[in-house]
Amino acid sequence: MATIDDVAKLAGVSTATVSRVLNNTANVSEETRAKVLYAIEKLNFKPKFSAKALAKSKKRFKIGLGLGKRMQLLRDESDELGGQFYGIIVREIKALAMMHGAIVKELWLEDDLYEKFDGFILVGLDVTREILKKFKDTEKPIVLLDHYITGEEIDSVLSDNYNGAFCAVNYLINKGYKDIIHIHGPLTSYSFKRRHDGYIDAMKNAKLKSQCYEYDDVKNNIDVVIQKIIKGKIPEAIFASNDITAMRIISELKKYKIGIPDKVKIIGFDDIPMAKKFNPPLTTVKVFKQEMGSIAFKRLYELMLNENIHPTRISVYTKFIRRKSG
Amino acid sequence: MATIDDVAKLAGVSTATVSRVLNNTANVSEETRAKVLYAIEKLNFKPKFSAKALAKSKKRFKIGLGLGKRMQLLRDESDELGGQFYGIIVREIKALAMMHGAIVKELWLEDDLYEKFDGFILVGLDVTREILKKFKDTEKPIVLLDHYITGEEIDSVLSDNYNGAFCAVNYLINKGYKDIIHIHGPLTSYSFKRRHDGYIDAMKNAKLKSQCYEYDDVKNNIDVVIQKIIKGKIPEAIFASNDITAMRIISELKKYKIGIPDKVKIIGFDDIPMAKKFNPPLTTVKVFKQEMGSIAFKRLYELMLNENIHPTRISVYTKFIRRKSG
Repeated sequence: MATIDDVAKLAGVSTATVSRVLNNTANVSEETRAKVLYAIEKLNFKPKFSAKALAKSKKRFKIGLGLGKRMQLLRDESDELGGQFYGIIVREIKALAMMHGAIVKELWLEDDLYEKFDGFILVGLDVTREILKKFKDTEKPIVLLDHYITGEEIDSVLSDNYNGAFCAVNYLINKGYKDIIHIHGPLTSYSFKRRHDGYIDAMKNAKLKSQCYEYDDVKNNIDVVIQKIIKGKIPEAIFASNDITAMRIISELKKYKIGIPDKVKIIGFDDIPMAKKFNPPLTTVKVFKQEMGSIAFKRLYELMLNENIHPTRISVYTKFIRRKSG
Repeated sequence: MATIDDVAKLAGVSTATVSRVLNNTANVSEETRAKVLYAIEKLNFKPKFSAKALAKSKKRFKIGLGLGKRMQLLRDESDELGGQFYGIIVREIKALAMMHGAIVKELWLEDDLYEKFDGFILVGLDVTREILKKFKDTEKPIVLLDHYITGEEIDSVLSDNYNGAFCAVNYLINKGYKDIIHIHGPLTSYSFKRRHDGYIDAMKNAKLKSQCYEYDDVKNNIDVVIQKIIKGKIPEAIFASNDITAMRIISELKKYKIGIPDKVKIIGFDDIPMAKKFNPPLTTVKVFKQEMGSIAFKRLYELMLNENIHPTRISVYTKFIRRKSG
């Protein structure tokens, strides 16, 4: 049987680091964490709490991980892009499930539920009220991840989108910029909506006029949006509702010889791994993706054990990361 | 050593109910829960997880429970009133601490920290940014309870004030009322502020004019507020930011022979035990006080064990309770 030393050796890190990953006792970089999780999976390593968890559950829980077609589109288009955000969350959930002796099976939100599951984690904005109803009808525990449906008392795990956006926009305002626009994804996404609210409130607080443009990252019609924007007065800064959008904005502006950050400052959201390697490196708001995955898994596990059943909504704090683009 | 049967016997409930209280596996009424916690404390009962918890922590954690002078004022004025909300939360924390082999000591937020604590739970709106700084300087884990300070990345446990208020006001709107006013406590309280936001947004959504009056429940100057209101057109409904305020409004309106709910509908917030015994029984939004106490304790315990340290803000869903007043 694999030991913690085997995991550390294969991952090329210390056993202390493996322990930090297992217990989330300190911030470990996403790269290091990924290496450790990979080694754990490869060696089929079961930490001490695994046996305890299995004894407590008395059976191998089967978890349905519900993904939307929209996520599939993003993944098809570029495996890397999808893997930069939801990929990290999904990997975390699968690793934790393995360590807890549970089984995770991906399923499409739109599919019929022929199989029996003990609980569900439903990911992202594709979860509509109608889709949620279908899952609720199974009467199994559900955790919504990176989404929330107003008025539904369903356990949800989100990043603190509002405050993250508010702080990022405030940073631009404090640097003296007044003409700051916001390009955002579909506002049916609770996360995009709250980032949008944070932008609107920061601008209102500073008595500045807000201006928003909607952009669909699945269609990738950023060229149309940018054409509309540069027809008017070019803004001093753009706050994008995620990093992918921010990077596409920069690429598009480059075609018009509009330099970043000289001419326009750009700030993204998420801090996907690509963000720091981009040219220029992206100023952004870090979303703690692994923590979100880990909190969602642990909450579902608790619910499957029928413990602490009263539903809650958990917001994971974000962090502003200043690089070169804004 | 006391057993679960002893606890059940003293509390006058079944052992299954004691188990439900210990694991939060189903909603148990506040009265029953109080009886069970009392029996646990009286018999010094230690459930199985207690020994495990103590073994894991390797020592008896000492927890500082920070209370504000404002809470003391409420408590002095009427022990019952204070005991109806924070009293329930505090009792829950103390019972859980006892079961986990931890020690809880109450302290005033304004006091100097001479003693050594392993962690803090700070309760309510008296926690200012300055006071929080003093506690942060100790570098010990902190959980804020029923409060949040914008921009501070501190673990916080709140009720879902915004949605609770939004739903309550929507209920009045759906019944056809248009002239709905809001009487609220100090908006420096994050909870009162979010209830206020929920009222404002519900009114805005329905294209109705909102009208707010501030009231200080410590000064208890409700007579002044009511005089102001009845000088103008008497509203169809009043949404109060907590039950104590709602009950005082009703008592004050009775002096002017304004009947509730015939003339004016009144809705409170919190569902304190007194609310259902009031005349008329109060329509309100139930805050899950024990769950908040229990979540706050468990989160602090995790932080003291240095596990899952990334900070989060947890909102506990509320429930609309329709009685006679509105």
